[in-house]
Amino acid sequence: MSPLSLENNDFQPAPKLSLKDINENVVDAKFAIRGSISIKAEDLQVQLNKNPHCLPFDEITVANIGNPQELNQKPLTFARQVVSILQYPELLNNRDVLTKEKIFNSDSFDRAERLLRDIGGSVGAYSASQGVYGIRKTAAEYITKRDGGEPSYPEDIFLTTGATSAASYLLSVLCRGPQTGVLIPIPQYPLYTATLALNKSTMIPYYLDEESAWSTNTTEIEKLVLDSIKKGIKPSVIVVINPGNPTGAVLSELAIAKIFQIAAKYGIVVLADEVYQENIFDGVQFHSTKKVLRGLQKQYPGKFDNIQLASMHSTSKGVFGECGQRGGYMELVGFTDEVRQLLLKLACLAVCSVVTGQAMVDLMLLPPKKGDASYELDKKERQEIFDAMYERARKLYAMFDKLDGIECQKPQGAMYLYPSLILSKKAIAKAESLNLTPDEFYCHELLDATGICTVPGSGFGQKKGTYHLRTTFLAPGIEWINKWEKFHKHFYEKYQD
Amino acid sequence: MSPLSLENNDFQPAPKLSLKDINENVVDAKFAIRGSISIKAEDLQVQLNKNPHCLPFDEITVANIGNPQELNQKPLTFARQVVSILQYPELLNNRDVLTKEKIFNSDSFDRAERLLRDIGGSVGAYSASQGVYGIRKTAAEYITKRDGGEPSYPEDIFLTTGATSAASYLLSVLCRGPQTGVLIPIPQYPLYTATLALNKSTMIPYYLDEESAWSTNTTEIEKLVLDSIKKGIKPSVIVVINPGNPTGAVLSELAIAKIFQIAAKYGIVVLADEVYQENIFDGVQFHSTKKVLRGLQKQYPGKFDNIQLASMHSTSKGVFGECGQRGGYMELVGFTDEVRQLLLKLACLAVCSVVTGQAMVDLMLLPPKKGDASYELDKKERQEIFDAMYERARKLYAMFDKLDGIECQKPQGAMYLYPSLILSKKAIAKAESLNLTPDEFYCHELLDATGICTVPGSGFGQKKGTYHLRTTFLAPGIEWINKWEKFHKHFYEKYQD
Repeated sequence: MSPLSLENNDFQPAPKLSLKDINENVVDAKFAIRGSISIKAEDLQVQLNKNPHCLPFDEITVANIGNPQELNQKPLTFARQVVSILQYPELLNNRDVLTKEKIFNSDSFDRAERLLRDIGGSVGAYSASQGVYGIRKTAAEYITKRDGGEPSYPEDIFLTTGATSAASYLLSVLCRGPQTGVLIPIPQYPLYTATLALNKSTMIPYYLDEESAWSTNTTEIEKLVLDSIKKGIKPSVIVVINPGNPTGAVLSELAIAKIFQIAAKYGIVVLADEVYQENIFDGVQFHSTKKVLRGLQKQYPGKFDNIQLASMHSTSKGVFGECGQRGGYMELVGFTDEVRQLLLKLACLAVCSVVTGQAMVDLMLLPPKKGDASYELDKKERQEIFDAMYERARKLYAMFDKLDGIECQKPQGAMYLYPSLILSKKAIAKAESLNLTPDEFYCHELLDATGICTVPGSGFGQKKGTYHLRTTFLAPGIEWINKWEKFHKHFYEKYQD
Repeated sequence: MSPLSLENNDFQPAPKLSLKDINENVVDAKFAIRGSISIKAEDLQVQLNKNPHCLPFDEITVANIGNPQELNQKPLTFARQVVSILQYPELLNNRDVLTKEKIFNSDSFDRAERLLRDIGGSVGAYSASQGVYGIRKTAAEYITKRDGGEPSYPEDIFLTTGATSAASYLLSVLCRGPQTGVLIPIPQYPLYTATLALNKSTMIPYYLDEESAWSTNTTEIEKLVLDSIKKGIKPSVIVVINPGNPTGAVLSELAIAKIFQIAAKYGIVVLADEVYQENIFDGVQFHSTKKVLRGLQKQYPGKFDNIQLASMHSTSKGVFGECGQRGGYMELVGFTDEVRQLLLKLACLAVCSVVTGQAMVDLMLLPPKKGDASYELDKKERQEIFDAMYERARKLYAMFDKLDGIECQKPQGAMYLYPSLILSKKAIAKAESLNLTPDEFYCHELLDATGICTVPGSGFGQKKGTYHLRTTFLAPGIEWINKWEKFHKHFYEKYQD
């Protein structure tokens, strides 16, 4: 650069921004999933990369985040073939040779052609902010079928960047400030409390009941609603996570109905996070909030017509596990046109969610049909992923179940177990001396001894005096489960009172 | 569903939420790009679909949004081949037959292999929230080369969902409330004012000078800064859009240096939206803010070391035009660790930007090299897209230039022209009678007569008493330009005073 001659260049530079100049809501927001344990795990990984034998373990077991494909879960062939064609539609011109060489299945081309038509020709163009209409139609058809024929409409579907942005849009619109109360289950996925903090609204925590398999206690919830109203805080939203994160619990029909009863009585919006709806284990049944609502509306005419329900789903979970593709949707039921327009405005500001992620929603919800070239393979792949996940869930649960000093609810769904740690006074005192919460202390010790990275319960919330951790059951193999068992026994003995 | 027996089911349902329960910041935010003209255009499209000859035109010309691939701009072959392989890595096992059949080029496989290594094996896994390290390295290398060797570091790069989420993160962190002032160019891309409204901070509009090709007037800006401080509002951020949106103007080195002088003197963060940095026309030179800053830091030791600069780029623009892929990055220079941690926290809350979009950043910034199988084709494709865009820009400009009642600055860059409409009293009165702003009236009339969809200047801001519109020059062919000319002459005559 040639020198520039600036006039008046004898000014005094001002200081940089300090914390007092900064949005305190962002400062206040907390998000533990990628917190201190996970940062330490990253450091340990760097050490292992430099010197593979410097630690008591050879690798980090990533059990802190539900990220299946990081842990070698294979993507579904059909879905990936289709998106591969969407990215390079020239492949359609080589359909004959590619199917002859068995590189692509013929139905992958058919689906890609349909999606390209719906998308308007290129995944590189912005779509409508609410999402591609044809894909919203697929979602509506999936929901209709899932809910035994209760109709769903493409006009009510918003395609979003995972489920995260759906939750974020909705809470941004509904959180007016400290006078807005949002009922959040405890424990919870901390996205919710963080988003509330960003919008400076009031969290009304409602505790899930560990003894009854982490179910909801609606008597308690109604009491909280009344207390909140008394304090001048309007309970505007209740967040329901079903299947639960971090608990893995699945709510009964009646539990959901009782939540709707409170929502109807007090005009509270229901935000249903149902991203684990396909991770449901043997003997358990998932009931969608939408279906339960429609049942109530029929059974109790006029009582539930005021319900405003937003339910969310994602391509990141289930057997799909396509986290990095950022696909998701929410269905809106019963919202006023005003609120819908505001949600659309936020979607417009982000222009649109990634178009291939939208396509992933289509592919997740509409697998190949019987007779299609990919049908058998797709079915087999889905089943294998599901079975392997369930198998590990059971093994992990069996390990916890037989140990002293740890208690765990039986796995019902999702990708997590959330065992309770029964910690001795000695262990608690040791944690305090290290300036850690007792659950953090356990998670640090577990990481240091075995390389297993989990999230302490304090990141999700827990009843005072109780301690938990969240672990996924995604890591392959069972060696890590055995290592954990050995660690726990050692820890339990070492800190016995 | 079997009937559920709810106790106490004689409650009175509460009313739904009303506007008074809702976040007023979202209500207040305005976003015109997909505003009333574009909604009307969608309606007209529906009419055309039903009855192709019911309107004075056969198709809508989408000139309201910079969405090249919607208008048949072809994606670059190399980039799309690579992402296609990333989506279906099985293709790597068929490399021989696919290259032999000339379906893929060999260097597409090489790049895909490198990216898969960097990504960790699957684009379906969440990446680090800041983005894939190897891709951030590519971005840093690109910036270093672009800026004549001034070093850039992967640690300073955040990969984001387009440039939009970068701007949104930064403003969310820096906007503390009404006491925070953000200097916004007028006219501007309305993302900025909308994001400010969401964060309830104070906009300090600074007017670009149409007479000097929409350049900045720093005397005026400094006056605004002082006025603002006097009022107790701290000017914290200045947004610089270069090349300009909607103006298409490109700032001189000196203009940028003068902005930095004010930023240094008053401790103001510079947010540089440089997404059109590759859309630069003949005889014009783009100067990156980063390079100008490094020059100033050398030339005036100690004076500019306090500068905090965030500069943004996107895969949506340039000749790449991959809007729907949602790739982008921002580079942070001079921020304190505190602010960086808060930005990272917001990135963590969104988990990560779409991984294929991150790969697109790599592909945009690092084209095939001389000697690579895709080199010649990629070069040719980039050149053709650029030439066609520039050609249309010139034709559109020439049309405005010869007409009465419309004035336009010569195209310098970006994808837009922002002509000034010289409207008669009669036209203004007519607009008022229809309850439209005069520029809205012109845009509605243009749409009704020709099917050309543009955005009125009032969506971007303009000096009182002036009227503009923004049009892209992306629509193929020149027939629409001829139709516009005919319309304008007719409009001008009809409303002559």
